[in-house]
Amino acid sequence: MGRTSDAKAKILTAAQSLLEQRGYSALGVAEICKAAGVPKGSFYYFFESKETLALAVIDAHWAAERRDWERILHGDGDPLLRLRRLLEATEERQRAGQGSYGAVLGCMFGNLSLEMSNQADAIRLRLQEIFESEVDMVDAVINEAQERGELTLTDTREAARSVVAQLEGQVLFAKLYNNPAQLRSLWQSCLALLGAGDRHALAA
Amino acid sequence: MGRTSDAKAKILTAAQSLLEQRGYSALGVAEICKAAGVPKGSFYYFFESKETLALAVIDAHWAAERRDWERILHGDGDPLLRLRRLLEATEERQRAGQGSYGAVLGCMFGNLSLEMSNQADAIRLRLQEIFESEVDMVDAVINEAQERGELTLTDTREAARSVVAQLEGQVLFAKLYNNPAQLRSLWQSCLALLGAGDRHALAA
Repeated sequence: MGRTSDAKAKILTAAQSLLEQRGYSALGVAEICKAAGVPKGSFYYFFESKETLALAVIDAHWAAERRDWERILHGDGDPLLRLRRLLEATEERQRAGQGSYGAVLGCMFGNLSLEMSNQADAIRLRLQEIFESEVDMVDAVINEAQERGELTLTDTREAARSVVAQLEGQVLFAKLYNNPAQLRSLWQSCLALLGAGDRHALAA
Repeated sequence: MGRTSDAKAKILTAAQSLLEQRGYSALGVAEICKAAGVPKGSFYYFFESKETLALAVIDAHWAAERRDWERILHGDGDPLLRLRRLLEATEERQRAGQGSYGAVLGCMFGNLSLEMSNQADAIRLRLQEIFESEVDMVDAVINEAQERGELTLTDTREAARSVVAQLEGQVLFAKLYNNPAQLRSLWQSCLALLGAGDRHALAA
């Protein structure tokens, strides 16, 4: 039993790394097993298909990212400072990925959304749920700032959606140019989207 | 000669459609030839590899999109009105794609950037050039508005980059949710990024 659960963890780790570097379509079960160092039989013992595995990888990746987001957004400091830290953490994460893999890997959820949202419905629905959660989390912190009179938005959820869209768009550039510094202006863009560009410009 | 140049056009048309629907990795030369109705020998007569073909598709797609962008951005009306028309045309294009293919296909350049920027250097460099051109074109119209005193940006190119990033991020959502209406708020987000949210809000 020790060996088999070890095999499952090895498959998940190898699949996450390959999925981040190469995407979904370019990935084969044989290759995942080779990288994980487990026989192909083990794969089908734990996972029905490549799609089932991808869902497990997405869930594990989101569980970890959600913990990071919650730690930052529920941490100390004023709400807009916490939001700023979240965006800065995005740049740091891309920088760390570049250090490990030699290339900015981008956002796994954004990558998969563009690669395959026309194809696998189960994965598409899971990605929709993740992005809804992200918008909810940003919306909550924006609402805190609004209640403190620091923002005067008419639709905080729409603003939160535009912040997450900006994050995804700029992460796309960071990946394309293989340069995490593309994310340096993310906080300024975020302030502008929140209609707080002038007031908070000096503090940024 | 008539037959062979016809075959090349058929391959390009089939490849564009398959690339937009399925991405690059999921695509095989045999499948492209089948969809185009040409023998595999014809493929290698015109294209050295799948990558060479992809570059030709990207160039053709960009030539057409650039013409659209130029027509709109160099058209009649005030600069900010032309910029607004450009963003509205993005929603219309996604709606038309959904009508033809049953799914919002997103932006071919954004899709390929996220799918494969870690992989094929020639394609990555071409995509970088295209996004630079897009930012340049948006920058030019923003500068026009700035010269008329309608905007007071300190860095127009940075603002133009954030507008293109917002467009890519919201197109990602439109594709993921298979819903072009996700792009409805693109113009409001753009105004906010240009620091013109309040002044132009009623006109929008």
